[in-house]
Amino acid sequence: MTQAVRHDSMRARNLGVVLSEVRRSGPVTRAALAEITGLTKTTVSKMVGDLIAAGMVTETGTLRDGERGRPGTTLALSGERVAALGLEINVDYLSVCVVDLTLTVRLRYAQAVDNRACTPLETLTHLRKLIHRAVDEARTAGLVIAGSALAVPGPVDGGLLHSAPNLGWRDVRVGDLLDGLPVEAGGKFPVEVENEANLAALGELWFGSGPDDFLHVSGEIGIGAGLVVGGTLFRGARGLAGELGHVIVTPDGPACRCGGRGCLEQYAGQEALLRTAGLDLPPSPATGLDLSASSTAGLDLPPSSAPGALPPAAPGAGPGGSPALAELVRRLQEGDAAALLACERAGDALGIALTSAINLLDPGTIVLGGVFAPLFPWISSPARAALADRLGAMRRAVPELAVSRLGADAAALGAAGSVLQRVIADPGGHMTTGRRGPGPR
Amino acid sequence: MTQAVRHDSMRARNLGVVLSEVRRSGPVTRAALAEITGLTKTTVSKMVGDLIAAGMVTETGTLRDGERGRPGTTLALSGERVAALGLEINVDYLSVCVVDLTLTVRLRYAQAVDNRACTPLETLTHLRKLIHRAVDEARTAGLVIAGSALAVPGPVDGGLLHSAPNLGWRDVRVGDLLDGLPVEAGGKFPVEVENEANLAALGELWFGSGPDDFLHVSGEIGIGAGLVVGGTLFRGARGLAGELGHVIVTPDGPACRCGGRGCLEQYAGQEALLRTAGLDLPPSPATGLDLSASSTAGLDLPPSSAPGALPPAAPGAGPGGSPALAELVRRLQEGDAAALLACERAGDALGIALTSAINLLDPGTIVLGGVFAPLFPWISSPARAALADRLGAMRRAVPELAVSRLGADAAALGAAGSVLQRVIADPGGHMTTGRRGPGPR
Repeated sequence: MTQAVRHDSMRARNLGVVLSEVRRSGPVTRAALAEITGLTKTTVSKMVGDLIAAGMVTETGTLRDGERGRPGTTLALSGERVAALGLEINVDYLSVCVVDLTLTVRLRYAQAVDNRACTPLETLTHLRKLIHRAVDEARTAGLVIAGSALAVPGPVDGGLLHSAPNLGWRDVRVGDLLDGLPVEAGGKFPVEVENEANLAALGELWFGSGPDDFLHVSGEIGIGAGLVVGGTLFRGARGLAGELGHVIVTPDGPACRCGGRGCLEQYAGQEALLRTAGLDLPPSPATGLDLSASSTAGLDLPPSSAPGALPPAAPGAGPGGSPALAELVRRLQEGDAAALLACERAGDALGIALTSAINLLDPGTIVLGGVFAPLFPWISSPARAALADRLGAMRRAVPELAVSRLGADAAALGAAGSVLQRVIADPGGHMTTGRRGPGPR
Repeated sequence: MTQAVRHDSMRARNLGVVLSEVRRSGPVTRAALAEITGLTKTTVSKMVGDLIAAGMVTETGTLRDGERGRPGTTLALSGERVAALGLEINVDYLSVCVVDLTLTVRLRYAQAVDNRACTPLETLTHLRKLIHRAVDEARTAGLVIAGSALAVPGPVDGGLLHSAPNLGWRDVRVGDLLDGLPVEAGGKFPVEVENEANLAALGELWFGSGPDDFLHVSGEIGIGAGLVVGGTLFRGARGLAGELGHVIVTPDGPACRCGGRGCLEQYAGQEALLRTAGLDLPPSPATGLDLSASSTAGLDLPPSSAPGALPPAAPGAGPGGSPALAELVRRLQEGDAAALLACERAGDALGIALTSAINLLDPGTIVLGGVFAPLFPWISSPARAALADRLGAMRRAVPELAVSRLGADAAALGAAGSVLQRVIADPGGHMTTGRRGPGPR
């Protein structure tokens, strides 16, 4: 019994080692895998056989081994079977994506929903409909969903969403609520719940063009940030780090939904921006499910498209792209004075909060995402000016501001990516519990 | 040759494994060390023999091994030979300590010097005199200095002190300057240079009573902070994290020496505090070396005193305890209105900056050190009130404020501790390069 357990755990470990190395080094031969990992050729061949059978690895061609002159079959990750579901609930939209093991985005849906007008259960009912549609399409494409992760706009600790002030939610076990909703077409998926800003930073790391050291700023109705240092997300003592939106810009400033005053969100959040620009439109109510009208599109990207090759977020057209935001971008392009002033003020406030953040966190570059991506041309200059003014004398180099190519998609992509990371680290766990779709195409 | 190199590196590794385990588990027998480390008894005996010869380990008694019934000799770290020198240059004082391998503080000197009135070379000349005295005393006690580390009040990157705005220093290679000064009695020591706030946090971790997750705030003329998460210092991308003193309290506030405006230091730094309290005394000029008058004392603590057993910093009597600070504490105790107002304002500003820091860093507890230690009774209440007011609604638990038991000693202790960490991780390196003192007592 002990022997069997030991054997199982060694097999699980070896599967993870081999699959991780295929990702890192692929296309790669079995012989090279044995050399790199230190495993015997027999073990590598057995593991590779299992991974091919599980649809995680595929043979891509042959490579002549320089030293021995014998051609070997090359292996790479397969995007044909295993995929993950990335989900996001934000204040004014829902977003779902399916990403396969090669980190290729297979489809993305988003829907504008004013979740402030919804109870958690209502929001999750809307989300479930999006999930059904995504899962159905994934199955049709022969994909098996290995798991899912959900991004929420507030600090999460042990699965509990403490507080999403912009939604008016408090102490909600979102994952449990979603688990309680059977997904008709595909049974139930395990759902990991995590802070939106943390997952957006990981999305930027895995799908963006960013380096290994950056602070990703998610500008939505709320503002969050995720710090990546040396390729690893910094989470703080309880996973609550990165709440840039509640860094204080002016201590006696306007009241914030968090209970504080003068927080960055009150100056540079989407609502503050629109209000200053004279675009204080009433939020669109929840409109049921009209994907054809409100989704950004079901993008069935070809499996060969490289990660990071997504087009830049179109102005005002990301998942968070409300009609009011699109209108703001239009007015900015036309040189509207109120719109320009709104971005000037928001950018200055962002520069003040980032000054505090840079002093505390010492990030590499700063990547502006969410609605700050389409607004980057107008928001980045005042933010840069504030940083240079306040940090330039003490630091020899002020961190650069860069625009996210993912915009508001980052969090859902990061959610899917975090599931795939776990699959690659422990493929065995997902072979045994994964439900099969209609099989490989 | 390759064989010999491999053997040397394996011996170096094994020495580190054995010494680390003696520290963690001591008093511990050779048999137990073999069991815990997985090394053979022969290897353990050889390594222990070398460590005893190097004065790093000592036999402390016998312990009957329950299972086999044979008594074994117990081993523990020895504080009799190897020690480290911890140094600090701060704005208005210099500080030197000698700590032995058991983390027992063997002596501490501090001197009030207004380093703002000094060139780097002048300051380092003062420091060298303190070093001479400390090294001489350490030698007399039979100690060998394995190395030293120097805390400086500003961000350090690769040995270069970028900027110490409160000293008016910029781009100074402090270590090189100190290396260039021969230490008469004892040759030269390698000197690692590191930010004061980072070393103070490590001092709190190793010598204080703190947990493994905390933000240590060093209140001096400047204010810095060091974040420890899971027992590890968070350094950011370039080691420049934790500059709490330049977190913005009011964006249009008073100009700061860093080039910014409205930084925390302008509200809660020692000078701002004294000024508000009506104690804006001129800084004491550099007075040469009069240790008997200005040092806190050469504390020759008995080697048996446990780490963390230092008495709490006496009000106004730490290394940074200028006469003005002692006077401030006296006035606070008497209920002087201006003094109380100064602490009220500083505490409120500290609470505002810590709100931003907690939102970004998610620390465990917050430990107030430096001059905030003697001022804790008066500064902590307004700071706590600001935190509860601004964070209470969103976070279920606002981090607690605790007082540092080390006060302004933390940085020099952390400096010595960081050297000893390196010795324990690689004792072999310090056996070959370490100069011997007069030998064991």
